[in-house]
Amino acid sequence: MSRSDNDITRYDPAMKGSSRAHDDVDWLSPLEEPFQVIGLAWFTEERQYRRLPVVLDKKLEEAVGDSANHLSGAQIRFRTDSASLSIRVRLKGKADMVYMPATGQCGVDCYIGDVDRMWYMATTKYDWMQSEYESVLYQNRPSSMETVTLYLPLFQGIDELWIGVDQGASLSAPPPFASNQKILLYGTSITQGGYASRPAMAYPNILSRSMPLEIINLSFAGSGRAAPEAAQLISTISCPACLILDYEADGDPEEFQITLPEFITVYRTAHPVTPILVVSRLRYSLETHDPAWIREREEQAAFQHKLVRRLREEGDRHIFFFDGSILLGSVDYDECTVDGKHPTDLGFQRMAEGLLGTIRTIVW
Amino acid sequence: MSRSDNDITRYDPAMKGSSRAHDDVDWLSPLEEPFQVIGLAWFTEERQYRRLPVVLDKKLEEAVGDSANHLSGAQIRFRTDSASLSIRVRLKGKADMVYMPATGQCGVDCYIGDVDRMWYMATTKYDWMQSEYESVLYQNRPSSMETVTLYLPLFQGIDELWIGVDQGASLSAPPPFASNQKILLYGTSITQGGYASRPAMAYPNILSRSMPLEIINLSFAGSGRAAPEAAQLISTISCPACLILDYEADGDPEEFQITLPEFITVYRTAHPVTPILVVSRLRYSLETHDPAWIREREEQAAFQHKLVRRLREEGDRHIFFFDGSILLGSVDYDECTVDGKHPTDLGFQRMAEGLLGTIRTIVW
Repeated sequence: MSRSDNDITRYDPAMKGSSRAHDDVDWLSPLEEPFQVIGLAWFTEERQYRRLPVVLDKKLEEAVGDSANHLSGAQIRFRTDSASLSIRVRLKGKADMVYMPATGQCGVDCYIGDVDRMWYMATTKYDWMQSEYESVLYQNRPSSMETVTLYLPLFQGIDELWIGVDQGASLSAPPPFASNQKILLYGTSITQGGYASRPAMAYPNILSRSMPLEIINLSFAGSGRAAPEAAQLISTISCPACLILDYEADGDPEEFQITLPEFITVYRTAHPVTPILVVSRLRYSLETHDPAWIREREEQAAFQHKLVRRLREEGDRHIFFFDGSILLGSVDYDECTVDGKHPTDLGFQRMAEGLLGTIRTIVW
Repeated sequence: MSRSDNDITRYDPAMKGSSRAHDDVDWLSPLEEPFQVIGLAWFTEERQYRRLPVVLDKKLEEAVGDSANHLSGAQIRFRTDSASLSIRVRLKGKADMVYMPATGQCGVDCYIGDVDRMWYMATTKYDWMQSEYESVLYQNRPSSMETVTLYLPLFQGIDELWIGVDQGASLSAPPPFASNQKILLYGTSITQGGYASRPAMAYPNILSRSMPLEIINLSFAGSGRAAPEAAQLISTISCPACLILDYEADGDPEEFQITLPEFITVYRTAHPVTPILVVSRLRYSLETHDPAWIREREEQAAFQHKLVRRLREEGDRHIFFFDGSILLGSVDYDECTVDGKHPTDLGFQRMAEGLLGTIRTIVW
């Protein structure tokens, strides 16, 4: 079926999937000033849209693969008075996920306002059969200087990205954060944002709208295996505000019980007093039908809790445990995912609300 | 890019998009006993997966088009002790929406349990490049008789649907509802379920898990224009518990102010005391940037409120007004959609929670 045969868009033009900027737009690269690209720990050195260094340890390269190019957590920030804003993107691949719309996997989200209150503006609309798109995020906005934040694709890489503003529009650097400290997350497909409807709804990105700090999301779908090489690499990121370890959901339970203490040991060698928050996994809806899932979750949570308690007793007062099984609520937790495991926007909102207080407490 | 090149599924097998039933499965048609198909007002007479009669008034046919085949609100109910459950579907078209995953547009959701507590079990996984799929919803369930509810695709029609159970499994009719009265909704793309991540998360379908009544969703994306022919047709549905009119979001504001009183008049002629709930539209996130959206929303809500008040003063004690602008909350209502207008699962959950008390009050 060709795109033009789409019955829904024939009846509802608002549901169409593309829009084009008008001609008198300046196309600018966020690689240049005054744009600020955050959420990519090696961006300042390498100027690459990538979550890990370009050259990786071989073992790590195999584990994370292309996921290092996926831009979960990356943001572009700037101030402008442009009445319109457009975006042009060349993706590394096409939308290809059954549980996640193209907007969440490959789209860009736009918010207006500073970190005390960022307002949702728009998500890119595009023909998701293509790997390149151009989309108008807004137009006819009253001409006052505002901070714009763009959230980049959660499960896709980009080769090129251009930002279109009206000719003659003013541009300046965004306001600074509260400090140059960064919140670091290490996790799995869930923490990477599977399956949010749009990039800004991955839970670390929701948190970013309540925390005036840079958040760096080092979560790799299916590859949150916590090799010592990963812990070593994350240890090289300067000025950590905290490290959140939320990778129980992937991989083998026995392997997890080996990698978690190893990961903490490696990280502690480099950062003796940085707060570490160990988050156990969500309740899967499957556990209502198969008690084996409950047992595994409870055992793994107990293991993590005990490990953190032991480390605290041994003198590490900067490590904490969070029981992730409470995050989706106790009444209708089974409604929060699209496959029994990966949260929807509903699940991610609950995760962010549930974690916010704890993260503020250990970071501030 | 071929499906096998999908990098995400290479690294995370749990994110793969297909599964096949084993061989010793009986494939049964829900068109036969003991299956119950609900949510399709003309199903009993016509045995068609369709939300409107096969033959339509010409004006209505043009307005609703293929949307009448989309199965938003349709459910298949039965009881079984089968340890596994599979489904095989031939869709009328492929997944083709940028803001909505294939699961929400074309998938099937499975819940286990009776209306006092239905537990989410699974959503069909399939290769969304295809228009036919077979998917295992569960297997290895302990063999007790349970009520199964399947929610059908929100924005797609089906030509064929087969349910696969283990050979020798018992099947029986589902428990009856509290009465044979039906909750009727007339609405737009939002009420049809754009853009839920899976069928059961459209707000009328969420409500169905808290209300032991059949719900019939007559919402047609882009076509909620409320022609008198539509009102006439809906009047022919017997045993209405209430009629919810939630179609302000589509169409022209001036047209709406003509069609709404006409629709009510037509419906009242046939159903003088059936509760009617008029729901004004959600807050769009656009209104934070353009006050014209606020004015229009407030004017339309005032119109609806005034109309309902006048009708009540004239003696109709069975018509009510609900201010839909409160449904997404006052703090972060802008976070609840994927395009500023159509709710995600987060928005739909808030809509269902916000409306439940009122609907119970006017129906019970």
